[in-house]
Amino acid sequence: MCPHALIPFKLVNPKTRLSCVLSQEEREAFARAMLEDVIHASKDANCSPVIVGTELFDSEDIQITVSDADLNQTLNSLLPQSVGAILILMADLPLANAQAIQRVITTSNDMALVPGRGGGTNVIFIKEPQRYHVDYYGMSFLKHIKIAQDSGLSCEVIDSFRLHTDIDEKEDLVELLIHGTGKSRAYLEELGFVLSVEKGRVGVERKR
Amino acid sequence: MCPHALIPFKLVNPKTRLSCVLSQEEREAFARAMLEDVIHASKDANCSPVIVGTELFDSEDIQITVSDADLNQTLNSLLPQSVGAILILMADLPLANAQAIQRVITTSNDMALVPGRGGGTNVIFIKEPQRYHVDYYGMSFLKHIKIAQDSGLSCEVIDSFRLHTDIDEKEDLVELLIHGTGKSRAYLEELGFVLSVEKGRVGVERKR
Repeated sequence: MCPHALIPFKLVNPKTRLSCVLSQEEREAFARAMLEDVIHASKDANCSPVIVGTELFDSEDIQITVSDADLNQTLNSLLPQSVGAILILMADLPLANAQAIQRVITTSNDMALVPGRGGGTNVIFIKEPQRYHVDYYGMSFLKHIKIAQDSGLSCEVIDSFRLHTDIDEKEDLVELLIHGTGKSRAYLEELGFVLSVEKGRVGVERKR
Repeated sequence: MCPHALIPFKLVNPKTRLSCVLSQEEREAFARAMLEDVIHASKDANCSPVIVGTELFDSEDIQITVSDADLNQTLNSLLPQSVGAILILMADLPLANAQAIQRVITTSNDMALVPGRGGGTNVIFIKEPQRYHVDYYGMSFLKHIKIAQDSGLSCEVIDSFRLHTDIDEKEDLVELLIHGTGKSRAYLEELGFVLSVEKGRVGVERKR
């Protein structure tokens, strides 16, 4: 089974909650590096990545552009057209690896979810996408569980911190510097980010 | 295999980073409820829980008291005495369930670790405890990986958000209210805690 992996991606001015430590240009390069890590992991797991964004950019991978930026509308217009299973993977999951994605796509249930930290949904896998619709933002994980129930779809929640850890804020960079192995970690290190311990708490600081 | 599960526990004035939303008495009751959830999960996974603390308290479970409160000294004095495999499980992991613990204790490696959020170590499983020692605090996860290497022990990192999520701060309560099923979630709800969404971000608020 080689499901398409839809990866929503915002090219311009992404990850604004990292503005305290990264300039807009750096945030764009960092988001791009995280995307590449996610693409790499999805290919390793035998998925075919499809980048879903509002504009095309330089990349070897298949891209779909949509004029409307609303994530729910975009994905809900794509799902009914899909032939075969669909994986929806957020682009800010640089700890994703093939093993974790494999656990998702080999579920014996009709679908699988991975919650994000703080109530969001980081990964959705649906064997029959025409039977499901997405509802991101706010407490989307609980909404996605309910949509599965309402649609009569059995749903497994995959217990993975690698897919649970979305990188939004400065504190999240700690996880990437500890557990990351790809381009986005390398980019942070290139910018001078290192782990630090202050009053027993681990954080990051930028050395240059 | 029924390993002993050592669960370090602080009875008096625990979880001070929750002082902003819980009184000392409430923090003590909450920590106790989380401990009970962890004990329940470890028993479900066929482990024998042993509570390691500085004073005895009312509980059916086996307790070891130690005069010295230092976690590393305490555990490092227990490990060489152990007959058989040892699981060390933090008491603030109320999302722990039998399935996640089973993944840890059935590792084919010499030992397994689960990182905590922010560089800590939430779970350690060691088949031959006399060959290992612990070094908690600070970036303990990376230290524990290195001790395994230095001791020639193969080590699996278990990818579980349930065991990765330690409850230290107000934001962590979101995870418990979304994914918890045990006594500590019930206790929070009893105190009036509910999920809230403000500016698209999920948080908790206390209604009474």
